[in-house]
Amino acid sequence: MRVLLGCSWRLGRSLLRAAQQQQTPVLTARLKCHAAVAPVVWGSKKKHRKVKLNVFLDMADPKIEAELAPLRASVKEQGDLVRKLKADGAPELDIKKAVAELKLRKKVLEDKELSLVPDAATFDRARMEDLLKRRFFYDQSFAIYGGITGQYDFGPMGCAFKANLLSAWRNFFVLEEQMLEVDCSILTPESVLKASGHVERFADLMVKDVKNGECFRLDHLIKAHLEKVCADKKTTEETKKECKDIVIRLDGMTKEEMGAVLKKFNMKSPITQNDLTEPIEFNLMFGTQIGPTGLIKGFLRPETAQGIFVNFKRLLEFNQEKLPFAAAQIGNSFRNEISPRSGLIRVREFTMAEIEHFCDPSDKSHHKFDSVKDTNMLLYSACNQMDGKSAEYLTIGKAVESGLVANETLGYFMARIQKFLVKVGVDPKKLRFRQHMGNEMAHYACDCWDAELLTSYGWVECVGCADRSAYDLTQHTKATGVKLVAEKKLPQPKTIDVCEAAPNRGLIGKTFRKEAKVILDALAALEEKDIDALEKDLNEKGEYELQTSDAPYKITKDMITIKRYQKTVHVEEFVPSVIEPSFGIGRIMYSVFEHNFKMRDGDEQRRYFSLPPVVAPLKCSVLPLSSNAEFTPFVKKLSQELTRVDVSHKVDDSSGSIGRRYARTDEIAIPFGITIDFDTLKEPHSATLRERDSMGQVRINLEVLPAVVRDLSLGKITWSDVEAKYPKFEQQESTEA
Amino acid sequence: MRVLLGCSWRLGRSLLRAAQQQQTPVLTARLKCHAAVAPVVWGSKKKHRKVKLNVFLDMADPKIEAELAPLRASVKEQGDLVRKLKADGAPELDIKKAVAELKLRKKVLEDKELSLVPDAATFDRARMEDLLKRRFFYDQSFAIYGGITGQYDFGPMGCAFKANLLSAWRNFFVLEEQMLEVDCSILTPESVLKASGHVERFADLMVKDVKNGECFRLDHLIKAHLEKVCADKKTTEETKKECKDIVIRLDGMTKEEMGAVLKKFNMKSPITQNDLTEPIEFNLMFGTQIGPTGLIKGFLRPETAQGIFVNFKRLLEFNQEKLPFAAAQIGNSFRNEISPRSGLIRVREFTMAEIEHFCDPSDKSHHKFDSVKDTNMLLYSACNQMDGKSAEYLTIGKAVESGLVANETLGYFMARIQKFLVKVGVDPKKLRFRQHMGNEMAHYACDCWDAELLTSYGWVECVGCADRSAYDLTQHTKATGVKLVAEKKLPQPKTIDVCEAAPNRGLIGKTFRKEAKVILDALAALEEKDIDALEKDLNEKGEYELQTSDAPYKITKDMITIKRYQKTVHVEEFVPSVIEPSFGIGRIMYSVFEHNFKMRDGDEQRRYFSLPPVVAPLKCSVLPLSSNAEFTPFVKKLSQELTRVDVSHKVDDSSGSIGRRYARTDEIAIPFGITIDFDTLKEPHSATLRERDSMGQVRINLEVLPAVVRDLSLGKITWSDVEAKYPKFEQQESTEA
Repeated sequence: MRVLLGCSWRLGRSLLRAAQQQQTPVLTARLKCHAAVAPVVWGSKKKHRKVKLNVFLDMADPKIEAELAPLRASVKEQGDLVRKLKADGAPELDIKKAVAELKLRKKVLEDKELSLVPDAATFDRARMEDLLKRRFFYDQSFAIYGGITGQYDFGPMGCAFKANLLSAWRNFFVLEEQMLEVDCSILTPESVLKASGHVERFADLMVKDVKNGECFRLDHLIKAHLEKVCADKKTTEETKKECKDIVIRLDGMTKEEMGAVLKKFNMKSPITQNDLTEPIEFNLMFGTQIGPTGLIKGFLRPETAQGIFVNFKRLLEFNQEKLPFAAAQIGNSFRNEISPRSGLIRVREFTMAEIEHFCDPSDKSHHKFDSVKDTNMLLYSACNQMDGKSAEYLTIGKAVESGLVANETLGYFMARIQKFLVKVGVDPKKLRFRQHMGNEMAHYACDCWDAELLTSYGWVECVGCADRSAYDLTQHTKATGVKLVAEKKLPQPKTIDVCEAAPNRGLIGKTFRKEAKVILDALAALEEKDIDALEKDLNEKGEYELQTSDAPYKITKDMITIKRYQKTVHVEEFVPSVIEPSFGIGRIMYSVFEHNFKMRDGDEQRRYFSLPPVVAPLKCSVLPLSSNAEFTPFVKKLSQELTRVDVSHKVDDSSGSIGRRYARTDEIAIPFGITIDFDTLKEPHSATLRERDSMGQVRINLEVLPAVVRDLSLGKITWSDVEAKYPKFEQQESTEA
Repeated sequence: MRVLLGCSWRLGRSLLRAAQQQQTPVLTARLKCHAAVAPVVWGSKKKHRKVKLNVFLDMADPKIEAELAPLRASVKEQGDLVRKLKADGAPELDIKKAVAELKLRKKVLEDKELSLVPDAATFDRARMEDLLKRRFFYDQSFAIYGGITGQYDFGPMGCAFKANLLSAWRNFFVLEEQMLEVDCSILTPESVLKASGHVERFADLMVKDVKNGECFRLDHLIKAHLEKVCADKKTTEETKKECKDIVIRLDGMTKEEMGAVLKKFNMKSPITQNDLTEPIEFNLMFGTQIGPTGLIKGFLRPETAQGIFVNFKRLLEFNQEKLPFAAAQIGNSFRNEISPRSGLIRVREFTMAEIEHFCDPSDKSHHKFDSVKDTNMLLYSACNQMDGKSAEYLTIGKAVESGLVANETLGYFMARIQKFLVKVGVDPKKLRFRQHMGNEMAHYACDCWDAELLTSYGWVECVGCADRSAYDLTQHTKATGVKLVAEKKLPQPKTIDVCEAAPNRGLIGKTFRKEAKVILDALAALEEKDIDALEKDLNEKGEYELQTSDAPYKITKDMITIKRYQKTVHVEEFVPSVIEPSFGIGRIMYSVFEHNFKMRDGDEQRRYFSLPPVVAPLKCSVLPLSSNAEFTPFVKKLSQELTRVDVSHKVDDSSGSIGRRYARTDEIAIPFGITIDFDTLKEPHSATLRERDSMGQVRINLEVLPAVVRDLSLGKITWSDVEAKYPKFEQQESTEA
């Protein structure tokens, strides 16, 4: 709390917001700050096979703190500078430059923190990826055709994990909160994405090799080139300084400025040394034509959210016109990344799960907030980021009370997101919520927190949680003229002055024919001041030029009757605010894989995934001890019984030793294993049940065994319950190999 | 059985297959015969608001049979002609013409059958669609932007129904059969779809209005025009005959022939009377570019199956190299229909669930066939279709035994498909399996049966079940050079002669550099006769022209060593056969809506959907009798308890009468309703539980109520069980309204 009180973040935020009212330049304006858009892949260390990674540094260690202290101070110094510039109303370019430098310093600090982790905790990403590929959790799509980067196919285990994760998501959010789930079209006409801003601004800058057409993301190319120049011993100090300066300003540069840099340093393709084209704006949406005429331009949706917004009226009606309510959607989205990388973290086709919670902007309380208010969360506030401080634990109740988190609804969802992530296998020690600093926030958002998961790629943004205010609904109303509003009852009725331009429909229809509808719509949309002007013009000049969505039209006096009267209203209309939690499913899956990739004590070769039963691809294996024919009927019967109680399972009657087969099922994360052995043949028939993580085994009668496994899989009982109730089976795992 | 024995269908089929070896012309070759491709929307009666529809005619009624007899005879006469032509090896065009006429006569017969249904059984499609729209089961996408035809958004109830349907599908097929489910990319590179044949042949012919660009499907346009000409009293008999003749031959016409017809009859746009373009081949896939270069052409997949085929090797390996196994995939596919229509039945974006069962072509038995062999099914054999007979009931065991259904695996899946469809709400009396007649079958299929559901659009193909033989894997092997084969152990080892062209890798690498790989692949793929030719050329001319996938290359003697030797092999390689059940989810949903759209006795206004609990969007409603505050804690507690046992539900505490609220929940197919009333307040606390279809009510203690509803929802107990166990609640439904 000390930090919060000492920080002028509220002031800072309002200033930042003011700055954001100005349009952000094309190249940086990824429209949404959620999972799949703006990956904060910090501390990526691609070149090293083993990546150091750990949870949190022991901050009590004075030696470590001493190493970090100067870096913290360096961040704080720059953070203070940014604040000052903003408070002084400095020119935008100066602020941007200062912010870019601040980000750089933050990155240095974070890299250092990660590097101070003891060597023992290194993460062997290559080994994990090998296992994921070998057991076909997922792999590159169309590999026999050479493959396409940024596209993956999920094999049986990856697909089952994904299906279980989505089913858990649906139970946890949709069912529990009685959300309105929808399933909307992927192909989206251009007009919808124009309104949302994606057609104009969802783009990156790139350059092409003039000879072979290879494409490079411009900012990545410039940065790499200038860093190489700086590293060259022959480069003068002056040039080095210039390069560093450009790198810092890169984030805020226009297309023209970057083009100039490209020319000045005579940059070529880093691969062929061929010349490069001028910078090209590349829209990240996949375009296509809908229908055979070639006239209806469409895109594959870049996010699922727009499908919900365009259905707002139907959903509100379904909810009997009551607010608040939340709609949800699970589905695929598409982004034509210029150079996809980092496995599942940045791909061209991905599954999202998005929630749009619609509420009254003047009341963002949440009726279930009390039930989560004591949830302890690791929050990395914008303020702490600017001060070079670490993330800090705080209950969400306190965070909302102090104003750090903007409102109860946002806080409620943050707590629920945390609970969900931990439930599906995220290591709670590798989870933090990072607040967007003003400059990062999309221009419509009031407050935005990302759930970031620590992986070998650094902290990866996996869930965004943003208060998007009324931005989206307003945009679609502007584009279509359809009011996307809700009503609320006034505390007491009020009398208002109404002023309307009542059209002479017959005359307008006869005069304008096909255009009549546009004109009638435009007349209906006139505000009071417009009607005043209209009345004045009609009285003075006898005609009025009406602006419409396609062209201006001349309206004459006989077409209009101006009506002014009073009426009593009992309700008022408003555009709802939207709170949006947005989940990147692939990123969560990848992080869960990393957080659960384990090694048996002292055995490099025996790796396994400790996925929680609720999301494990299969719940149980059934292994006959040997190929003895007497085991077969028991295996068959058990398999049927498990199917009857909906337990997904795998029978492995291959010839390997039981130890080897356990190791195989461990690799694909099967949490429970049943072995049919010679004792099974005796009455009362029984089998061993083994738990993957502890490798503990118990002996259970076949009659109750399927139900026990079902209850374990659903989390209704724990392994400890089972160990307490049933006799331990003592055969040593070591003899199995 | 009489019919089967009397029919030469086996002979007929083999002849047909021979005929199919010849390529089918572009315009008719929809590549796959499943759900979303080749809709057999027979008996469509768009213009009537109420569509006659019923189950099966009472065939015992001699009056009805008398009316149908001449039509049946007419079909049989033509069927016999087709058979004769084929047996005599008549020219293909003659056969096609005869088949087209046969189809026409079949349609006349079927229309007549449907028209003989008593008037009482008319189906009010408009009223159902109104309800579906009003309660937002589904509706047109992007309606506030004017909408796009052929695209639909599922609202909360449609989405939940769909999710439940897919979950039931996954349990019924994937879990029960331990299939390998995968989740593959939608964006597919051109090369993959070239190999599958979609790039070349997945097209329809169309013409455009030269002025406004409006497009028309050519065959639809010609047919409509010629029918109009025929209907004109001024048309001469000769012209009428010519028109009829063209309509009959339309199906087999080339682009040029259709173009000539267009010209001859001087056809114009039926809407604007403007001129039309020449016929244009329009590929039905949505194209796009993958990556920023614009060089990688891609398509949205038109079916999910290809994703499974290209992963065959990985899947076989996952299955420890054992056959048979089945892979499955649920996902969206896309087809750019020229003129989508018929609601959910023909759309541009749709969800499919496909299974590819891989097996040894010489052994298509199924180990679980015995468990389904007594399933009674309504089979409409190709033979019966040609004889003008109706579909007939037969057990699947008999159908396979007699050879009507090609093999056990195909039969097993047909029986399972039937069981699944009935489970999710299909009226078994409106379900039949129709065998493709030879001419309809895709050129690779050995046998194909469609599950057709009777709706107000006529019989609609909803699930295809085809034996695709080795077609798909072979095509991908041809395109990539990657062997997609399985191995099986030979009964005894055998000695074979091996002949190989061993390359001098160093020299080839040095000579051809980048092209070396292509050459090495081509050498490895040479068959014995090729190697003989190679050896001969090298000996005689000192060089050999090697054909590769990109170009021919000159190979010299020093690059190759010819080796001939014997070796003993224990296994043999083969390309697996594929049996493919393919489900069109949207079509099944639509049919289930129709089959379950009910009316309360004598009350036109009270309609409801009797969806089975397993797929009903929500399982239960919770309704406080009035707004009495004392009810609130009970409602809240019940809602929590229902959530805890995973029962999706809706609390409706709005102010309507209890009867009106029941009617509202009936409309959205909620099968069970709990009412909290004044008796609830007394100890022991209890509530009423109402069942939607019977409107019966019982009184149950709150403590056990959630578990009872859960068991009802999962189908573990029936409503009769509940009525037998708990006291009946006697308040009359009629007092509720």
